[in-house]
Amino acid sequence: METLAYFNGVIGELDEVMVPFNDRSHWFGDGVYDATCGGNHIPFALEDHIDRFYNSARLVDIQIEQSKDELNKLLRDLTKKVRSPQTQVYWHATRGTANRNHVYPVGVKPNLFVMIRPFPLVDLDHRETAITVEDTRFLMCNVKTLNLLPNVLAAEKAKQAGADEAIFHRGPRVTECAHSNVHILKDGVFRTAPLDNLILPGIARKHLCKLCDGLGIPVLEEAFTVDEMMDADEVMVSSASTFGVGLKSIDGKPVGGKAPALLKRIQDAAMIEFFEYTQQPEKAAAVKRGESVTA
Amino acid sequence: METLAYFNGVIGELDEVMVPFNDRSHWFGDGVYDATCGGNHIPFALEDHIDRFYNSARLVDIQIEQSKDELNKLLRDLTKKVRSPQTQVYWHATRGTANRNHVYPVGVKPNLFVMIRPFPLVDLDHRETAITVEDTRFLMCNVKTLNLLPNVLAAEKAKQAGADEAIFHRGPRVTECAHSNVHILKDGVFRTAPLDNLILPGIARKHLCKLCDGLGIPVLEEAFTVDEMMDADEVMVSSASTFGVGLKSIDGKPVGGKAPALLKRIQDAAMIEFFEYTQQPEKAAAVKRGESVTA
Repeated sequence: METLAYFNGVIGELDEVMVPFNDRSHWFGDGVYDATCGGNHIPFALEDHIDRFYNSARLVDIQIEQSKDELNKLLRDLTKKVRSPQTQVYWHATRGTANRNHVYPVGVKPNLFVMIRPFPLVDLDHRETAITVEDTRFLMCNVKTLNLLPNVLAAEKAKQAGADEAIFHRGPRVTECAHSNVHILKDGVFRTAPLDNLILPGIARKHLCKLCDGLGIPVLEEAFTVDEMMDADEVMVSSASTFGVGLKSIDGKPVGGKAPALLKRIQDAAMIEFFEYTQQPEKAAAVKRGESVTA
Repeated sequence: METLAYFNGVIGELDEVMVPFNDRSHWFGDGVYDATCGGNHIPFALEDHIDRFYNSARLVDIQIEQSKDELNKLLRDLTKKVRSPQTQVYWHATRGTANRNHVYPVGVKPNLFVMIRPFPLVDLDHRETAITVEDTRFLMCNVKTLNLLPNVLAAEKAKQAGADEAIFHRGPRVTECAHSNVHILKDGVFRTAPLDNLILPGIARKHLCKLCDGLGIPVLEEAFTVDEMMDADEVMVSSASTFGVGLKSIDGKPVGGKAPALLKRIQDAAMIEFFEYTQQPEKAAAVKRGESVTA
């Protein structure tokens, strides 16, 4: 298949599958999701993403029908059905199909959607641009819900400004981006916002912290301000398809570029981890030798 | 028909119609809605609701394809198809069908959903109960979007507490409810929060303000606190199907009940307006004679 849409067991291309009018995502965005990238037909860091998905579901009282192992197997099997080895593997569960009513429907099972399509990893050799946007989102940003309209508006604002991402801040404090986390390097330290209800607990963020630990790079989980970000040695954004790409400008002003070797060490470690997890040892070895490798 | 689901021209019962997997409501809750009640097969105050719908769409850059007149005619025609004269008439537009990407899809038209079903008006002769919930929603509550998960969670919390509604507050300030606006009567004054980005500009709220004006009841558009609400002569909630029902308790403590005659005057004016708009003059006359009339 070129792309894959899955709805409660029904499978087709993305433009073929239909879902019930009464699904609660239509009325309330009443669901939670997660997503990772697939490499070599294998969904990367799947266990981490599934753990987070069940946690998101728990936080909004959605009882996922499948066990974690069943969902893991399903997502691995579905990822193999798509022709492209390099994919986005996305899934969400809604509270189910029921007539519109704010309170939870009784005796209704969640609906499971899976979406898989060709999707390139962001090339870490280039640098991206961003704008800043006041963060007016709800106070449950730690839950990966389908309530993403403010993120949509911010991402479009970035696009209109010719930028790649929108960095949210609440007053002076930087939180995260419209569809990624943001971190800085300053004086050799990797600094990222702590896990609270203002940011998503990014899986790439978690891996970057662990990789920095392994590389002997100090990790500081402490929020930073817009000014501190503008003055950082490097600014990095990370998501399921972006393992720490460097920024070159924010709001049109140059940022980062002062610690490219440190940035590269972290990026290489992330790519090696990705290639090893997705059973591509020759690519992992090439990164170790300092060669440029595309996913 | 018993119920009606409409998707871009396709019509069926609510449990029959299917919609595309790739509709943007699934990925982002990327849409806006509005709803009113139908009486005598006529959607009440439809022009007001359509105006608000287009304003919501404008605020999130969704370009509704239909003109206001076309949508008005469509909704009136569809409401006539449902057997029950007393209905809920709900519609929403999403940003369209497109592969998942935060930024707006290019060259894609919005999808229009309409949902109509039998729905009773809330009986104004009884009183309801509520709980209070800290308001952690986003800062665009003036837009009637499909991002309603915090409202779902609050409504369920109310239900679990055996209450009918959840009243949101930001610190001491009362904003609105999970699915209605809230107002108080105090010393003969009708007081309601001003229109800003913390509350929905309720159509029932707007009508209540105008009706109070007509009755010579002073209207104060100024936010009130939880304490002021607990101490009010009456507390009222209003929505498209609830024209100012009185509360009898909040968080288990008795409230209101100190100005029942004033409350009744306002409620009667709202019911008369509803019956006149929906061409039920005999019912309007009965309310004027002081008789109890059900919608």
